[in-house]
Amino acid sequence: MTAGGLGRVETRRVVLFAEDGPLRLQSGAALAPVEVAYETYGTLDAAGGNAVFVCHALSGDAHAAGHHGDPAQRGWWDTIIGPGRPLDTERYFVVCANLLGGCSGTTGPASVDPRTGRAYGLRFPLLSVRDLLAVHRALLRHLGIARLHAAIGGSLGGMQVLQWALDHPEEIERAVLVCASARLSAQNIALTAVARAAIMGDPEFHGGDYLDGPSRPRHGLSVARRLGHVTYLSAESMRRKFDRRRRGGPGAQMTMGSDFEVEHYLDHQGESFVERFDALSYLYLTRLMDYFDPFADPTLDLARVSTRFLAVSFDSDWRFGSEHSRHLVRSLSAGGVEARHVEIASPWGHDSFLLEGEEYHRVVAEALGAEQPQRVRRALPDGVARLG
Amino acid sequence: MTAGGLGRVETRRVVLFAEDGPLRLQSGAALAPVEVAYETYGTLDAAGGNAVFVCHALSGDAHAAGHHGDPAQRGWWDTIIGPGRPLDTERYFVVCANLLGGCSGTTGPASVDPRTGRAYGLRFPLLSVRDLLAVHRALLRHLGIARLHAAIGGSLGGMQVLQWALDHPEEIERAVLVCASARLSAQNIALTAVARAAIMGDPEFHGGDYLDGPSRPRHGLSVARRLGHVTYLSAESMRRKFDRRRRGGPGAQMTMGSDFEVEHYLDHQGESFVERFDALSYLYLTRLMDYFDPFADPTLDLARVSTRFLAVSFDSDWRFGSEHSRHLVRSLSAGGVEARHVEIASPWGHDSFLLEGEEYHRVVAEALGAEQPQRVRRALPDGVARLG
Repeated sequence: MTAGGLGRVETRRVVLFAEDGPLRLQSGAALAPVEVAYETYGTLDAAGGNAVFVCHALSGDAHAAGHHGDPAQRGWWDTIIGPGRPLDTERYFVVCANLLGGCSGTTGPASVDPRTGRAYGLRFPLLSVRDLLAVHRALLRHLGIARLHAAIGGSLGGMQVLQWALDHPEEIERAVLVCASARLSAQNIALTAVARAAIMGDPEFHGGDYLDGPSRPRHGLSVARRLGHVTYLSAESMRRKFDRRRRGGPGAQMTMGSDFEVEHYLDHQGESFVERFDALSYLYLTRLMDYFDPFADPTLDLARVSTRFLAVSFDSDWRFGSEHSRHLVRSLSAGGVEARHVEIASPWGHDSFLLEGEEYHRVVAEALGAEQPQRVRRALPDGVARLG
Repeated sequence: MTAGGLGRVETRRVVLFAEDGPLRLQSGAALAPVEVAYETYGTLDAAGGNAVFVCHALSGDAHAAGHHGDPAQRGWWDTIIGPGRPLDTERYFVVCANLLGGCSGTTGPASVDPRTGRAYGLRFPLLSVRDLLAVHRALLRHLGIARLHAAIGGSLGGMQVLQWALDHPEEIERAVLVCASARLSAQNIALTAVARAAIMGDPEFHGGDYLDGPSRPRHGLSVARRLGHVTYLSAESMRRKFDRRRRGGPGAQMTMGSDFEVEHYLDHQGESFVERFDALSYLYLTRLMDYFDPFADPTLDLARVSTRFLAVSFDSDWRFGSEHSRHLVRSLSAGGVEARHVEIASPWGHDSFLLEGEEYHRVVAEALGAEQPQRVRRALPDGVARLG
């Protein structure tokens, strides 16, 4: 990691929709209060023109960079945000907010329903990506930002950026979508369906009403997270990280309990996740990804989309691989929108978007800062560009 | 499917190891009684030289072909076994047995432990592939068969055939390993680890002692099976079968419950599996696959292996893809063993081994019947042959 980085930062909270002015969801339902947790890094310039909005992925939160007291415990995208980093906080005013439906400070299904005084549970309304954006946009109004220099996000974060730029291109100059998708495949949906089945079938899920009870569906959520991690890594990155190494050593006796290092890794991921994440948020956020399909929207008018798009994918990502980026860039280009795709060589699968990578970071930095199209080393079919 | 096929068949049972002559496992543990469920098709010739042993995969059973009364409900490999089919029952005497540790008639962890009068549960000893073979071999002795014309199996079935031919090549003339592996990858292990976590963490698993209680870990087992099916299909076959089709139709409201056809498919697979399969068998059989690594065995002596091997893989299989077949053929060839690899083009992923396919069936038929090496259309690197 680059030396330096942001110092101590803090999460702020603001109620953006109160009971007298509820958030109107795509489904028609009204939601209030809607509180949002967010962080900002850097300084908004006098013209308000240097803001970059970071949309986080499924399990992210508002704490994207810097630290909350322990300099070793840094935000989830600290590698890319900070002084001199691609999202250069000496140049940009960076905003990151926990998304609607989340469980890290922003209103979600684990919040208290003011009508009942109990947690919403499954009575929380189903959300669309547009609902998430309505809250992001209200936060920007609250911060006095009318137009973003750029919006960027990985995975579900990239899906938010895409929908935002399609709906309100005048608000986003540059959109950077990292390993995103405009349309989950049947396999993608199947994987989240298994995760949701693990949660909803857990005897301790109690129909979603576990929040006021003594136990939570820890088991189901930890299985969902284990499965998630299998899909965030590539087969090759698992081989490099773990291969067939056993904690007991090569000669140890067989055991039904965890023995291979990859098992211990998944156990750890599952167990730590249940301490910080809510099972209902997992359900709501995966579900809105399944339904996301913006190019099938009959109201879409690409002719008015002035935002410039960059889609970045990683060649070993099998969760939202390059075919997803190609599809969304093709869909944009077909409508005359300026959109490029860069595929980065990386063995680390979907997780690559959270990691450092010289080429990856350079491509993102250029997309944010350059007025000219980036250098393209080699043209691929259907207008896709590949660097390196 | 070819018209015809076997008629009514029946499963037989035999106790192969009684308390006065227990099965000695690789771990040193003794197991008795060991009962085996098996089926045979065709007629053993006078010389006893036309027997073909079929080793089944994780969720298979002894009922490989024909039917048990309802001609529409046929054995799991009925496509390949029968009169005029690749395992031609007018020519071969075909034997298939439920494997040790299974739950379809052969002794396994759900069987009653004679020492306690209760189900074994997790007190059942851990098994190795060699333990499964010890029972298969005892069955052959019982049937009066000293040497197999061929042994064939897919997935875990192929792993059994491989170990058998390595240990007792004099007993197997031809070995056909279909989408098998000699060494699970970290990703393979991770996937079974998630499945096992789903089962063992289910509050109704009760440390494995659910068999004498009122409930079973149905939830965990159904999640494991859903996940299994995601890995048995390819992304492409899921697209062809389900794409993003919704049962409610394209305009229906979003729902947290199953809606996409692929979700209903997985629900059905999960729910029907728990009616016929035991969670403990799932644990024991996946676990022995994780540990399987025959080419790392220091006692292995390839110089004495006279069996002729054919490894078949399918290009869209990402569970045990062609790299697994290449690895095992390379390992055999390096020791001077006659081994070929044929990769078949098929969009259906790991499941392809259970399906019909003209080229697939021809390759298997030729491997069983031909005295000459099969015609090779195109040579690939490292001695691998690709047909078609």
